[in-house]
Amino acid sequence: MESHEPKTSNSTAEEDGCSNWDRAVVARRVERLFLHLNPPPEFSDGVELARCAGRAKSDVNTEQLSKYMRGKYRDVQQKVYDYFNSRPELQTPLEISKDEHRELCMRQLMGLVREAGIRPFRYVVEEPAKYFAILEAVGSVDMSLGIKMGVQYSLWGGSVLNLGTKKHRDKYFEGIDNVEYPGCFAMTELHHGSNVQGLQTVATFDPIKDEFIIDTPNDGAIKWWIGNAAVHGKFATVFAKLMLPTHDTKGVADMGVHAFIVPIRDMKTHKPLPGVEIHDCGHKVGLNGVDNGALRFRSVRIPRDDLLNRFGDVSRDGKYTSSLPSINKRFAATLGELVGGRVGLAYSSVGVLKIAVIIAVRYSLLRQQFGPPKAPEISILDYQSQQHKLMPMLASTYAFHFATLDLIDKYSEMKKTHDEQLVGDVHALSAVLKSYVTSYTAKSLSICREACGGHGYAAVNRFGSLRNDHDIFQTFEGDNTVLLQQVAGYLLKQYKEKFQGGTLTVTWNYLRESMNSYLSQPNPVTARWEGEDHLRDPKFQLDAFRYRTSRLLQSVAVRLRKHSKTLGSFGAWNRCLNHLLTLAESHIESVILAKFIDAVRSCPDPSSRAALKLLCDLYALDRIWNDIGTYRNVDYVAPNKAKAIHKLTEYLCFQVKNISRELVDAFDLPDYVTRAPIGMQAAEEAYAQYTQFAGF
Amino acid sequence: MESHEPKTSNSTAEEDGCSNWDRAVVARRVERLFLHLNPPPEFSDGVELARCAGRAKSDVNTEQLSKYMRGKYRDVQQKVYDYFNSRPELQTPLEISKDEHRELCMRQLMGLVREAGIRPFRYVVEEPAKYFAILEAVGSVDMSLGIKMGVQYSLWGGSVLNLGTKKHRDKYFEGIDNVEYPGCFAMTELHHGSNVQGLQTVATFDPIKDEFIIDTPNDGAIKWWIGNAAVHGKFATVFAKLMLPTHDTKGVADMGVHAFIVPIRDMKTHKPLPGVEIHDCGHKVGLNGVDNGALRFRSVRIPRDDLLNRFGDVSRDGKYTSSLPSINKRFAATLGELVGGRVGLAYSSVGVLKIAVIIAVRYSLLRQQFGPPKAPEISILDYQSQQHKLMPMLASTYAFHFATLDLIDKYSEMKKTHDEQLVGDVHALSAVLKSYVTSYTAKSLSICREACGGHGYAAVNRFGSLRNDHDIFQTFEGDNTVLLQQVAGYLLKQYKEKFQGGTLTVTWNYLRESMNSYLSQPNPVTARWEGEDHLRDPKFQLDAFRYRTSRLLQSVAVRLRKHSKTLGSFGAWNRCLNHLLTLAESHIESVILAKFIDAVRSCPDPSSRAALKLLCDLYALDRIWNDIGTYRNVDYVAPNKAKAIHKLTEYLCFQVKNISRELVDAFDLPDYVTRAPIGMQAAEEAYAQYTQFAGF
Repeated sequence: MESHEPKTSNSTAEEDGCSNWDRAVVARRVERLFLHLNPPPEFSDGVELARCAGRAKSDVNTEQLSKYMRGKYRDVQQKVYDYFNSRPELQTPLEISKDEHRELCMRQLMGLVREAGIRPFRYVVEEPAKYFAILEAVGSVDMSLGIKMGVQYSLWGGSVLNLGTKKHRDKYFEGIDNVEYPGCFAMTELHHGSNVQGLQTVATFDPIKDEFIIDTPNDGAIKWWIGNAAVHGKFATVFAKLMLPTHDTKGVADMGVHAFIVPIRDMKTHKPLPGVEIHDCGHKVGLNGVDNGALRFRSVRIPRDDLLNRFGDVSRDGKYTSSLPSINKRFAATLGELVGGRVGLAYSSVGVLKIAVIIAVRYSLLRQQFGPPKAPEISILDYQSQQHKLMPMLASTYAFHFATLDLIDKYSEMKKTHDEQLVGDVHALSAVLKSYVTSYTAKSLSICREACGGHGYAAVNRFGSLRNDHDIFQTFEGDNTVLLQQVAGYLLKQYKEKFQGGTLTVTWNYLRESMNSYLSQPNPVTARWEGEDHLRDPKFQLDAFRYRTSRLLQSVAVRLRKHSKTLGSFGAWNRCLNHLLTLAESHIESVILAKFIDAVRSCPDPSSRAALKLLCDLYALDRIWNDIGTYRNVDYVAPNKAKAIHKLTEYLCFQVKNISRELVDAFDLPDYVTRAPIGMQAAEEAYAQYTQFAGF
Repeated sequence: MESHEPKTSNSTAEEDGCSNWDRAVVARRVERLFLHLNPPPEFSDGVELARCAGRAKSDVNTEQLSKYMRGKYRDVQQKVYDYFNSRPELQTPLEISKDEHRELCMRQLMGLVREAGIRPFRYVVEEPAKYFAILEAVGSVDMSLGIKMGVQYSLWGGSVLNLGTKKHRDKYFEGIDNVEYPGCFAMTELHHGSNVQGLQTVATFDPIKDEFIIDTPNDGAIKWWIGNAAVHGKFATVFAKLMLPTHDTKGVADMGVHAFIVPIRDMKTHKPLPGVEIHDCGHKVGLNGVDNGALRFRSVRIPRDDLLNRFGDVSRDGKYTSSLPSINKRFAATLGELVGGRVGLAYSSVGVLKIAVIIAVRYSLLRQQFGPPKAPEISILDYQSQQHKLMPMLASTYAFHFATLDLIDKYSEMKKTHDEQLVGDVHALSAVLKSYVTSYTAKSLSICREACGGHGYAAVNRFGSLRNDHDIFQTFEGDNTVLLQQVAGYLLKQYKEKFQGGTLTVTWNYLRESMNSYLSQPNPVTARWEGEDHLRDPKFQLDAFRYRTSRLLQSVAVRLRKHSKTLGSFGAWNRCLNHLLTLAESHIESVILAKFIDAVRSCPDPSSRAALKLLCDLYALDRIWNDIGTYRNVDYVAPNKAKAIHKLTEYLCFQVKNISRELVDAFDLPDYVTRAPIGMQAAEEAYAQYTQFAGF
């Protein structure tokens, strides 16, 4: 153990009301405890032989760790697992045609709601954490089912509850809840996805008949990718520009995008209603259990009451009323209500990542290939390269677990209190977490497949369907690249407010402090500290993450100001786009790390805490190493410190590997949920299950 | 243009017989020419508005560029395209069951061979470049067909030609050629993929009956993933440990892994032969047109003549004879003959990458979303972030095109001359190119899907099937992580030879010089040069790439020596594994860059040369920027130079974007090969094709 740094350098400044000095003291205690539990790693060559000798004995108490990880809603998740486990005919086979898959998916949803008696709709607004727990569990049965359920309850149902008023709730709640009213969320058009304000579908008010007339003005405005539309939907929440008649020469005023309930199929015959043309969007890369369709409207009339009028209404005489002063505000309020979808995706994405990591880690422990001369072959997880692929991923899975649980807590709180600061915080946090987590999971699924070699390519071992189904998580409910830009925009706003002395949103409070430390030069002394105590000190890690965010933020603000003069604000933004995206990612990495450090500290069981501390250090140092160029470029870390970070990262991978079986077991997902033969909990059965599957 | 660097600093040392001084002169001429053709970029904000104003006028002559890119064997590729284009019933539909897909794939192969009269088998040994051209074209029809064809001709057929002798060729050539003898290549076992020497299937010689007895001793030795086995195969080349009876107490001697021709199904009834148990490996992530099966042998007898005896033979009385002195040498010679598979995969992987890049670039030019206030929306390729995703990928595609063509040339030459140095070179080069290119393509397919948003998720737009089919390229014919290690091993051997004054293999000749420059300190003057002339000077780029390789090589050699003392050679290797993998990647990046620079220089058409120079610079600088931490850490580049590299990389992305349509057109793949509606050459038809597909 190298440890020659002074320990009192971090006794200034405050954060979240807890002084850093306190924090450092706690951190040192945690570290001492950790070192007590896990004897100091002999960070020398001597211990290396253990790398070939298999896993070191582990102290981790899986049950305790699992208990700490488990959310409040594990019971309802177990109910979902048990129900589908008891109904093999409802399980999705490896080979199924698109049309059969869609029907099966509908039967799965019906079974869940009507037979298992799990009614997710009531939780959408009232107990969102429970809703998301059900969503995650359902997604692990078949991700198509998760998305189908999300379309019905979060999107179609959610739009009625969140954008409509009591009359809509009274009229539609029951039918949505029991799936008598399967519905769609018709926002995206062929030519417009991310740019919702550019939608072209129109809803023109006809004051004579007291109706809206819904029209698709051109091919580009065809509603596209609408889930539930191709086969099952009876209704659609249609987003369209509200057009009101005026008395001026134009004759009509565009009031901006609003949402309308439009019946699309006959309740009895199930045939498309007059004026509604429905086509099938066809096969997708994944999620083929969801029937995405395309909708074209030709003068479809709906009563005035079917405008979802929470944020803007039209009176009998065609007058527009709203509690919100402008089109932009109303648009923001409308989209703001849809933020739950992102929360759910971020959370479900972590669920997918857990399944993949469990399978990849267990198989990597099982699989043996090569080894020292004249000795038995060793497990492929004993190879440094395999640890490098999977251990930072395992650490990230834990990090994301805590971060998304926190997001759900904040979201639930927001739904209760409608606190304005919290609304802003949840919006930005859900956008950036959804983006960051789903991109990470998507990459990880490919890494897991590749890390499991040929057997990872067997469909039964799940990486293919997980990847294909999850892939679109990066795009829907907000394209990741677009969402990251929104968050960069929020960060710049916060930055501006800081300099005007205003208050910062909770999640970004850290910027106040780290911006100060950033604006001074990096400390040439600490830049040279390379002892393990220092590198594993949460204070060093958080400082480094936040320094980076602050630096990116300050420098992009300067660049934007400079370029705006010649390019205008849009041109300047585009000129700095890569920089802005990096800023948003750096920010969320800081936020995730802070949450993870809190979660380590709050863990009551010492052995679990020690394991979490190990994972947290790996998460932190791996990320710092990944961007070491930035840190080196401003001499935030000296060359030898950079090397020490790299060396320690590799060593932490090795340490995590030694308890990796317990760490994946702690996710507490039974074999009938993970379902991959090569990822079975009882290693001795894995190959046998796999050969049996092939008919041996 | 910043250009204040002295120009004579590179007048020492030689390389490939051409002095650097000459090279630098040529390079400057090329650059001047380039600057003359493309006026110097106004590397300031003024020009930036063009980023929003759409594509600048381009000078690229697509036809000329295409002509330069096109290989000698375009004709036979066109024949393949035309044949399948004329036979719609042979085209693979989006939805097809596994069993139907397998039958269709067989019909496609039969059609190719018997109807279109394309007979790839004769080219496997005699004109490999033509064989690979057919393979690439066939793979673009359906990658399953490409792999099915590869199994029949490269693996099953190739093993007969390359590991057998005249008697085998005489007996099997015709049947393999016309697919009357569909066959398998049964190497991989359930428990052993990469570690071929660990295979457990045995072939015991019975001197009484003059036969070998093939046995699967345990479940782990079941042959697994054997293409053509589940349904169509009549024969298999089975890899097994040759056991010869001895007169000592053991009674039997293990002569190492050999290859045997084993009939697996009856020629008439097509039933599995006695002792041969065949099962279906089932659904895979992709390539479901290939019938991978599992084989278990129970005392299956084959005549002595069915040992593929080129490198080792057994006489009638059970004596072993071989021209090669040891088991290891024979094993190396045997596996060495299979190197063609890797050459083919590297080349086909570039073919897949081309299709993906064409679709992604064309759609990104077509798709519009957002824009400056009160102005029309702009194409998504006008966004810096989209350029960042796709333009380095486009540059890499060109880089890989030239590198794999060169590999094929070398391979063809090797097949003619059997030159020993060339054999070594081709082996290492094919391993590392296969690994590097297939990993890159796999990542790129995900990036392309994501870059094309929701419409990229429509199955008809191909990213899903391309990714699923291509995915396993990273694993079969040698797991990428394992192959990279082999190459790192070769590099270390070369390093050792350098210091012993021996000759280096051609591809690695550069190490001799760059190791010298590495062993001196980085030049503190050039480390500060940041002018565009300098950064785009091939000499700077190559020096930087090679410096990195040499540094990684020298440092890992030191580390290995150090760790070997305490950990033994296996432990030391594992301790340095990540380092070794980075070394191998750095090496191939250097090799690819050198080839690309040559290709730029050799291009006769000035406008094409200018376009290629732009791509080559982007390839080089993007790679340097990706590993800027390493360069910064040793002060090979100063902080401001690092920033200049980053800035220029972004600018080159923008420049390449301006000619990106022409650059993808130059790949010369017709719409009926790329087949994605959103990637059609005529942009105005893309959306219409796409909506028509959905039934509008």
